[in-house]
Amino acid sequence: MTMTSTDAVVDGQGAVTLLDRTRTAVNPQLRSTVESLPDSIRRVAMYHFGWERADGTPDAGQPGKAIRPALVLAAARALGADETRAVKAAAAVELAHNFTLLHDDIVDEDPTRRHRPTAWTVFGIPDALMAGDAMSALALRLLAEDPHPASAAAAARLAACIIELCAGQQADCAFEQRDPREVSLDECLAMATAKTGALLGCSCAVGALYAGAGEEEVAAMDAFGREAGLAFQLIDDLIGIWGDPERTGKPAGADLVAHKKSLPVVAALTSGTPAGEELAELYSRPTLDAEAVRAAADAVERAGGRDWAQAQAAERMGRAVEHLAQAVPDLAAAEDLLALAEFVTRRTR
Amino acid sequence: MTMTSTDAVVDGQGAVTLLDRTRTAVNPQLRSTVESLPDSIRRVAMYHFGWERADGTPDAGQPGKAIRPALVLAAARALGADETRAVKAAAAVELAHNFTLLHDDIVDEDPTRRHRPTAWTVFGIPDALMAGDAMSALALRLLAEDPHPASAAAAARLAACIIELCAGQQADCAFEQRDPREVSLDECLAMATAKTGALLGCSCAVGALYAGAGEEEVAAMDAFGREAGLAFQLIDDLIGIWGDPERTGKPAGADLVAHKKSLPVVAALTSGTPAGEELAELYSRPTLDAEAVRAAADAVERAGGRDWAQAQAAERMGRAVEHLAQAVPDLAAAEDLLALAEFVTRRTR
Repeated sequence: MTMTSTDAVVDGQGAVTLLDRTRTAVNPQLRSTVESLPDSIRRVAMYHFGWERADGTPDAGQPGKAIRPALVLAAARALGADETRAVKAAAAVELAHNFTLLHDDIVDEDPTRRHRPTAWTVFGIPDALMAGDAMSALALRLLAEDPHPASAAAAARLAACIIELCAGQQADCAFEQRDPREVSLDECLAMATAKTGALLGCSCAVGALYAGAGEEEVAAMDAFGREAGLAFQLIDDLIGIWGDPERTGKPAGADLVAHKKSLPVVAALTSGTPAGEELAELYSRPTLDAEAVRAAADAVERAGGRDWAQAQAAERMGRAVEHLAQAVPDLAAAEDLLALAEFVTRRTR
Repeated sequence: MTMTSTDAVVDGQGAVTLLDRTRTAVNPQLRSTVESLPDSIRRVAMYHFGWERADGTPDAGQPGKAIRPALVLAAARALGADETRAVKAAAAVELAHNFTLLHDDIVDEDPTRRHRPTAWTVFGIPDALMAGDAMSALALRLLAEDPHPASAAAAARLAACIIELCAGQQADCAFEQRDPREVSLDECLAMATAKTGALLGCSCAVGALYAGAGEEEVAAMDAFGREAGLAFQLIDDLIGIWGDPERTGKPAGADLVAHKKSLPVVAALTSGTPAGEELAELYSRPTLDAEAVRAAADAVERAGGRDWAQAQAAERMGRAVEHLAQAVPDLAAAEDLLALAEFVTRRTR
């Protein structure tokens, strides 16, 4: 199956169609690779991807939206590659992403993922931890065994990215332990870049490598994905405070209830304004009632956190498009990548 | 630096000399690779290897005996390779080994490693977990970035081995939860093969790949390392019950006090003998005093667990040598590998 940017436009559904077609192209590879795991690890992985229930019976689960695989294929296509040869690479980045989900859920003690109990709550921490370990190795194994000439460079890049993702998750945990006013906005942006931008950038870079692109194009593709990823994080953080109930159903204030040090919150806390002080006082309370949540959202806004995040998101998207134009001078060829960037940042669906 | 089997023999110290020289050859690569990690992860890794104290000040630590790197270099040498070209591969298997130590210590809640507090007790579980994740990716990155023609095949093999190690650790945890009499000896042997034999086998196979060996030689080298690894585990388990105070200082009965389901214990529990029943009764007690430990050791012996383990260890070493002869028909060239196998199984030092 080959997708072209023209198809996506003709279909009139843009990113949604692209993601559907990516799942059709990549999920069989993803599933057969996961099924190659030893039994005891496979049952955890099959559950995590939603293909099986906890008791091992089949489930019609949804293994995620496939944004990262879609970026791999779209980047390869934008640079003239036959995307069918990049399906293993696309499955590899999705495995790497899911490895981080398995471990982050343990570390963050998250009880649910994709509307189901997280793997560690079902199978226990040791089994979920080992399944994550195996999934990381499986991602790199899939690339190392791929006969495509770019596979070794892609494996090296994905391994470097995994290290960056770990550093990002570590920084995130460290921030939660520190006094909110001690975390600088730069540290917070660096953390979001490592935790969210790195793998989106790596996905684009891997696609470029599979198209035989040179170092500069690969770097520009990586930068495109990173900046789009940061824009995504900023908008996700705004939704976490002011909500976007029409589109996502995520309730307003959810991140404030959880005392999350999201980017607009940190911008407000480090603003040196009276509203920033008010927010710090509210965040020092163990729990926030509905009125306090509204007051906190208001304080973030008056401290300039909302405007800053919106301006940053727009700036990052602008930079993303500049990097993309460097990698793919004919922007018509990059239409699918732009559609995906729009999708992740505006959450159209 | 080049080592030859002749050197080792002339020195008259065999494996000890080989390991010393391996550390001299590999540790600089290992250390510079670890130092390339992001700051927050590097401090955990540097501590784990003993190169730094918890506060980041330098420590003269000992990053392990380097048995696995020694196997990589010795296997490469035995098949005629220039071992200096396999130093990165040797460092990669040591990184993979240390990744498993970091995570196993978390899962097993072990407080000490190499006579120092384990990383998770010093830095917390999230930081130690992420450091382990990064170290696994670093091992595979080192191979993926190595320009040696065998590096991709070696990376694929090491990734497959990591998956097997995870399955082995998972099986180990699962056995500890089950009724001792429900765990069969075959399951236990398979677990020990995955947990201990796999990486020793992989080390030998990687060395063979770096020597440009064909599939059959690589498989024979892997089988040599696996069988030697299983012999090592059996003898380690015997020492865990009857001790070897002269050589290792490990007190007799340590594994019995910990209710460990080691191979001789499982052989006894599944023997269907009255002594096996006695042992099961002793193991059902929450704690064992000195007298009960002696009774348990005696029960393992009367149930045939000691003889079985000794016979198995000898048989495994015999098979190991057969596999080695397949890979290296001129056994003189394989002398260093034999010396290392002797070292790990007899724990001469």
